[in-house]
Amino acid sequence: MVEPDFKKGGGLVPVIVQDYKTRDVLMLAYINIEAWKRTLDTGKATYWSRSRNTLWVKGETSGHFQIIREIRVDCDDDTVLFMVEQLGDVACHRGYRSCFYRKITDDGVEIIGKPVKNPEDIYK
Amino acid sequence: MVEPDFKKGGGLVPVIVQDYKTRDVLMLAYINIEAWKRTLDTGKATYWSRSRNTLWVKGETSGHFQIIREIRVDCDDDTVLFMVEQLGDVACHRGYRSCFYRKITDDGVEIIGKPVKNPEDIYK
Repeated sequence: MVEPDFKKGGGLVPVIVQDYKTRDVLMLAYINIEAWKRTLDTGKATYWSRSRNTLWVKGETSGHFQIIREIRVDCDDDTVLFMVEQLGDVACHRGYRSCFYRKITDDGVEIIGKPVKNPEDIYK
Repeated sequence: MVEPDFKKGGGLVPVIVQDYKTRDVLMLAYINIEAWKRTLDTGKATYWSRSRNTLWVKGETSGHFQIIREIRVDCDDDTVLFMVEQLGDVACHRGYRSCFYRKITDDGVEIIGKPVKNPEDIYK
């Protein structure tokens, strides 16, 4: 099985997550070898949660699973790109389509778009 | 000035770089506070090279500068998205448009597309 270079990052590799239809960048997460294997085996994006120190099937609580459509690796084998179908159309725990819902302006930060869902409704 | 949370990652923040026209994900790089300020000041993507331990203006050798069109920050302030105009149409040091020019298949890895330039011609 092909695998990214987990040694460089102390066992973790960053994953860029992109919506395969809209091509929006949705989020950045991390995988270890176990999360990599689970993702390939199940076809559902599985990450390593650095805050909770545990495997994390994206969507296990919210139902907003990410179905893998294509996986790419970068030229140095140390970053991965998941191109996914985002169930529920919400990747961000704050209810937005993408975690990158804020843009830098000369005056500070501007929120782009509206939340698709209320975070309280996602995690009830 | 708004800035990402550099403390979390020991002074570094990952940057996803996306072509603002094609919406292709081009690469992942890292910034420190200095690279962040330089990027905002100059409008050209500037990173921190972890291998060379130095500020790195993308394109300074190849001429393939990345002109900033929009900058976004994620919900946790610990990842940044640069949406850029990629000069020379080449982001990867191997001559490809994107560093993510390889896709995972059941049999291993498949190269997508052809290099736009010969790497030897880029860095001569």
